[in-house]
Amino acid sequence: MWPRDRVIATLRERGELWEPVPGVTALRGDVAQLSRALERAIASLCGMETGDDWSVPPAIDFATLVRADYFTSFPQWLTVASHLTDDTDALRAVAEHNDPALAVRGALAPPKAVLNPAVCYHVYSSLAGSVLEAPRLVTAQAACWRHESSYGALERGWTFTMREIVFLGSMNDARAFLVRTIDRVWDFARALGLQGAIEVATDPFFAPAARAKQLLQQLMELKHELLLPIDAHRRIAASSFNLHGPFFGDAFDITLPTGEPVTTACVAFGLERWLLAFLVRHGADSSGWPALPELQQEDKAHA
Amino acid sequence: MWPRDRVIATLRERGELWEPVPGVTALRGDVAQLSRALERAIASLCGMETGDDWSVPPAIDFATLVRADYFTSFPQWLTVASHLTDDTDALRAVAEHNDPALAVRGALAPPKAVLNPAVCYHVYSSLAGSVLEAPRLVTAQAACWRHESSYGALERGWTFTMREIVFLGSMNDARAFLVRTIDRVWDFARALGLQGAIEVATDPFFAPAARAKQLLQQLMELKHELLLPIDAHRRIAASSFNLHGPFFGDAFDITLPTGEPVTTACVAFGLERWLLAFLVRHGADSSGWPALPELQQEDKAHA
Repeated sequence: MWPRDRVIATLRERGELWEPVPGVTALRGDVAQLSRALERAIASLCGMETGDDWSVPPAIDFATLVRADYFTSFPQWLTVASHLTDDTDALRAVAEHNDPALAVRGALAPPKAVLNPAVCYHVYSSLAGSVLEAPRLVTAQAACWRHESSYGALERGWTFTMREIVFLGSMNDARAFLVRTIDRVWDFARALGLQGAIEVATDPFFAPAARAKQLLQQLMELKHELLLPIDAHRRIAASSFNLHGPFFGDAFDITLPTGEPVTTACVAFGLERWLLAFLVRHGADSSGWPALPELQQEDKAHA
Repeated sequence: MWPRDRVIATLRERGELWEPVPGVTALRGDVAQLSRALERAIASLCGMETGDDWSVPPAIDFATLVRADYFTSFPQWLTVASHLTDDTDALRAVAEHNDPALAVRGALAPPKAVLNPAVCYHVYSSLAGSVLEAPRLVTAQAACWRHESSYGALERGWTFTMREIVFLGSMNDARAFLVRTIDRVWDFARALGLQGAIEVATDPFFAPAARAKQLLQQLMELKHELLLPIDAHRRIAASSFNLHGPFFGDAFDITLPTGEPVTTACVAFGLERWLLAFLVRHGADSSGWPALPELQQEDKAHA
C-alpha cells in the first residue's frame, strides 16, 4: 500500500497532478490516462445496468433545486455560475483594472445557474410530471461542485466527477436495485484489487434539522457507502447507495400507474476517489497497475 | 439536409434535448449516444496527433487569465464560480428564504475560480517557466463557458464542450502543425459526410482595441475556421485553427532552448457544433446516421 499523501506527493513532483485553484485538480501523463480508463470502466458498469446514458450539462436551474429542497438541506455546499453584467462601462472597468479578480466582484450579474451539486437532479427534473409505466434506470456523469472548508487532491474537491445510476419505480424494485448494485460494485472493486467495507452512512445536512434527518437516515438505513482505504488509518466513501423513498417522486410529480409517487434510489461514484483508492493500492507508477476489468461497452452503435 | 431549427424542434419534441437554464443543454436517447461517439472520434483524432491527453478541470485561476491578458480581450464572455459565504446566519437565510435564488445573491463569497473560457490556458499555465527541448503537443477536453447575448441549442451555448490540440515549439513547426491539422480535420469532416469551407476569421475582442487586433489577425491570417452548414443560409464555425505567435510563450515564460519564447498554436473543436452539423446532414433519426469513421484509440493501455 502506498499511503495517500505519498501518492499525491509523487504525482505532484512528476508534474502529473496540480491545482489551478484550491480544490480544483488537473492531471496529465499516465495518471490522466488511468483516470479515463477508470471512467470508461465505471461507465460500462453503469451502462450494463441501465442501457440509458444521458449527457447532462455542468449546471442546473435554481427552480429544480428548490423543488428538491436542496437549499434547506445543503446550502453550505452550493456553488453558482455568474457571468458579468452586460454594461459596457462595468466591462471596461474589469478590462482596465490592475486586479481583475477584484474588479469582477463589482461587475457580476445575479447568478443564473447552479453548478451541479449532483447528477440525479437532472433526471428528476426532466421526468417531472410523467407517469412511469415501467421502472426506469438512467445513468449520467458530470462535473459536480461542493464547497468544503478544506480540500485534498483526489480525496475531497471543490469540483469532482460524479457518475450516477438513478432508479425510479416501486419501493420493492428500488430495494432490489440497490442490493444488486451493491453486489456489482463490490465485485468491481474486488476486480480492481480493492477491498473495503459497505457501511450505513448519513449526509451532512445543514442545521437545525440535521440531527433529526440523520437519525432517520441511519434508523431506516437509507444510505450506504463503499469505504476504501487511502492509508493505514483512513478510508474514503468512493461510492454511495441511496434510497430516497417517495421524496423525489412527490417533489417532481413522477408517479406509478397507480397514481402513487415513484420511489427513487441512486448509486453514485466519485471518480477521483476511485482513482485515489486504485493508486493507493497499486502505486503511482504505471508499471504496477493491473489491466482494468474488461466490461461490455455501453454504446454499441456508432462506436 | 435537415435545417437546424427542424432538427432541434424534433429533438425537443422527443424529449431528447432540453435546457435546464438558457444556454445550458442536456441530451438523452440516441442523440446523447451519438454525441459521445462523436466525442470519442474527435478524441481519437486528437490523440493520434498528440499522444498526450490531459484531464483538465472545469475551472481555472484568475492569475493565469491575467497573465494571458484574458480580461482585456474577452471580459464579456467571462463566467465565474462562487460558493456561498461560510457565515452560518447567511446560510440559514438562504435555507429559510422562500426564493433561494434571490437570497443567494446576498450570501456569495468573492469568486475564487473562473469557469474555463477555453481549454488551452491550463496547458500554458502548467508549462509556465519551462524550456522545451522538443516541440510539444497536448490535447484535452473540458466544458467551457462563454456568456453571450443570446443562445441557440447546440449552436451557441453559455456552456459547451471544447476539445483542443495545443502546439508549442518553433514558428515553422507551428505553421506545419496547423497546415497538417487543417487537412486532417477536413478529411474527418468529409468522412462524416460533412462539407464546409475553411476561411480566415477573427475573434470578437472587447473594445476599444478590438478593431486593431482584428485587423492584425486578418492581415496575418492568424485564425482560420472550419464553417459547416446548419441550414440553407447559415454556417457555424465547428473548429478553429489559431496561430498565436510568441504571445503565450512570452506571457508564460515558456522558451525554446535558444532562449526565445515558444510559438504556440491551437486547434479547437466545438463538440456540440460538430453534433449539430452531423444532425443537419443526416437527420434527427438514428436510422439515417452513418457509422462514424474508425480511428485508433488514443489510450492503448488500461482500456
